[in-house]
Amino acid sequence: MINIGIYGYGNLAKGVLKAVKKNSDFNVVGIFSRRDPKKLKEENKEVNFYSVDEVLSFKDKIDVMIMCGGSKSDLPQQSPLIVSNFNIVDSFDTHQMITEHFDNVNKNALVSKHVGIISVGWDPGMFSLNRIIFDSILPDGNTYTFWGKGVSQGHSDAIRRIDGVLDARQYTIPIDSTLEEVRSGNGKKYSAREMHKRECYVVAKEGADKARIEQEIKTMPYYFADYDTTVHFITKEELDKNHSGIPHGGFVIRSGETSEGVNHVLEYRLKLDSNPEFTASILVAYARACVKMYKRGEYGCKTVFDVAPKDLSNLDYQNLIAHKL
Amino acid sequence: MINIGIYGYGNLAKGVLKAVKKNSDFNVVGIFSRRDPKKLKEENKEVNFYSVDEVLSFKDKIDVMIMCGGSKSDLPQQSPLIVSNFNIVDSFDTHQMITEHFDNVNKNALVSKHVGIISVGWDPGMFSLNRIIFDSILPDGNTYTFWGKGVSQGHSDAIRRIDGVLDARQYTIPIDSTLEEVRSGNGKKYSAREMHKRECYVVAKEGADKARIEQEIKTMPYYFADYDTTVHFITKEELDKNHSGIPHGGFVIRSGETSEGVNHVLEYRLKLDSNPEFTASILVAYARACVKMYKRGEYGCKTVFDVAPKDLSNLDYQNLIAHKL
Repeated sequence: MINIGIYGYGNLAKGVLKAVKKNSDFNVVGIFSRRDPKKLKEENKEVNFYSVDEVLSFKDKIDVMIMCGGSKSDLPQQSPLIVSNFNIVDSFDTHQMITEHFDNVNKNALVSKHVGIISVGWDPGMFSLNRIIFDSILPDGNTYTFWGKGVSQGHSDAIRRIDGVLDARQYTIPIDSTLEEVRSGNGKKYSAREMHKRECYVVAKEGADKARIEQEIKTMPYYFADYDTTVHFITKEELDKNHSGIPHGGFVIRSGETSEGVNHVLEYRLKLDSNPEFTASILVAYARACVKMYKRGEYGCKTVFDVAPKDLSNLDYQNLIAHKL
Repeated sequence: MINIGIYGYGNLAKGVLKAVKKNSDFNVVGIFSRRDPKKLKEENKEVNFYSVDEVLSFKDKIDVMIMCGGSKSDLPQQSPLIVSNFNIVDSFDTHQMITEHFDNVNKNALVSKHVGIISVGWDPGMFSLNRIIFDSILPDGNTYTFWGKGVSQGHSDAIRRIDGVLDARQYTIPIDSTLEEVRSGNGKKYSAREMHKRECYVVAKEGADKARIEQEIKTMPYYFADYDTTVHFITKEELDKNHSGIPHGGFVIRSGETSEGVNHVLEYRLKLDSNPEFTASILVAYARACVKMYKRGEYGCKTVFDVAPKDLSNLDYQNLIAHKL
């Protein structure tokens, strides 16, 4: 049995609670939150809640802590802090800050001799894994990453900040014809506009100027200006009814040659009903690997690049080679 | 620079020669064959050929030997033999014999303290990798493997053994409508006939009874009887002109739930112009990993399940986490 703690209690943590129900080798010791444990217990009676201040007293009771805070302000502080006393896995996903986060977690993990696996999820995570394996087994080629169809939180937030907008949901959608071209192995480069389009569902405040809002969205630099963007104005009721899910997914495709004119196309594709539930499931598999690595005496900061596939599985090695190879 | 030897000289070995040209960190020391090195040198002046009897004198000149013999009679003998003095990678692909082959390679690798990575390719290999990662990150679900469209050597051989057949090529083809159903995440089980069909191109001897040949193919137990099989009689010229390539590929698809009604579909797909060239490229990437593992002091028999993705890449770790994660 692997005893886990969950640090933070949002959508991702709720996904972890669901994921461990699908994995018989896990036991949830408790959830650590800055919010009042008593109030959280009223919300969910199935699990124990503790204050983050109590975490040290669980040092010998928890094999690995699953860090469920946000990448912007929580994980940069919490992961280095917690790895000083626990093995951890986190889903830090700010690509341009990964090296800094790695160094911060590594420094403390090397001292405490714990394992901290960072940036676990599907991108970064499964997509990264496929990108480096694809690159390595087909070195002469091009890799394409498409995201969606899925809700982009950052783009939805950007729309919500526009004057006159009550609520909004933005979908990033890969362009089918480009996907098909990429799959044909033509090796071409594509612009942002050629790869993705953006679809926005916007609830305007009463009396707001919809034409201006639409214009502001479509011309917003970086977020929308480089894409073909469609804006639909809908009611709050429609938004809540038809756009409350958090689906996502995407494609990593590599095409390349092994010799003149001999082409290969490799594709990895995810179609997810719930982004946080799927990310949580990946975190749980890597939590298992984290504990196995720690028990072998490994320590320091790790990523999906360091983890041997066998460590993700709850089957023993004999079984894996006999039935899964 | 990684110095490799190639053991055996068939299609796979020729693929390895092409693959190393795409990887700047490899150097081919020589090819070891049971055939006369002088005659082989006439066939290919770019590389050194040696008799298999000379192999021991290369013990300190070769970092890893890429085993290019067949799974049926070569590799079961050669891999355990060569791993007693060299690191090796092989593409042993007889699924039901893998445990025995593993044990034979492992026994000698543990004594010689070398690394032997067996069953490297796309199935077993990349497909196996995806099967266990998919199972681990989405434990409540079903995994489907489809092969093709591609040439099956075993099925082509089976047709050639029929009286009156001069030559033949058999394509295994996934059934599109089943693929689409699987991708919808319905979780259904399918029969062999529902997943694949078989298409045969047959050159009959002059005067042979084509109706009987077609009947013998379609009713052949295990190979064809369980599938919808189409037989086309063509001339030897047509076969050579239109069916001389060795394309292959396939799909690994897993669908499953993380909670009631919340479904996810994960898909890995390969579309290959040349089966041996692509398999050779995978072998070369795992040869790199083999040498890294050996240099870290690891030894024994390994599979793709043991190899951390970073070891496949020729980029350093700093670079990987900064740019590929």
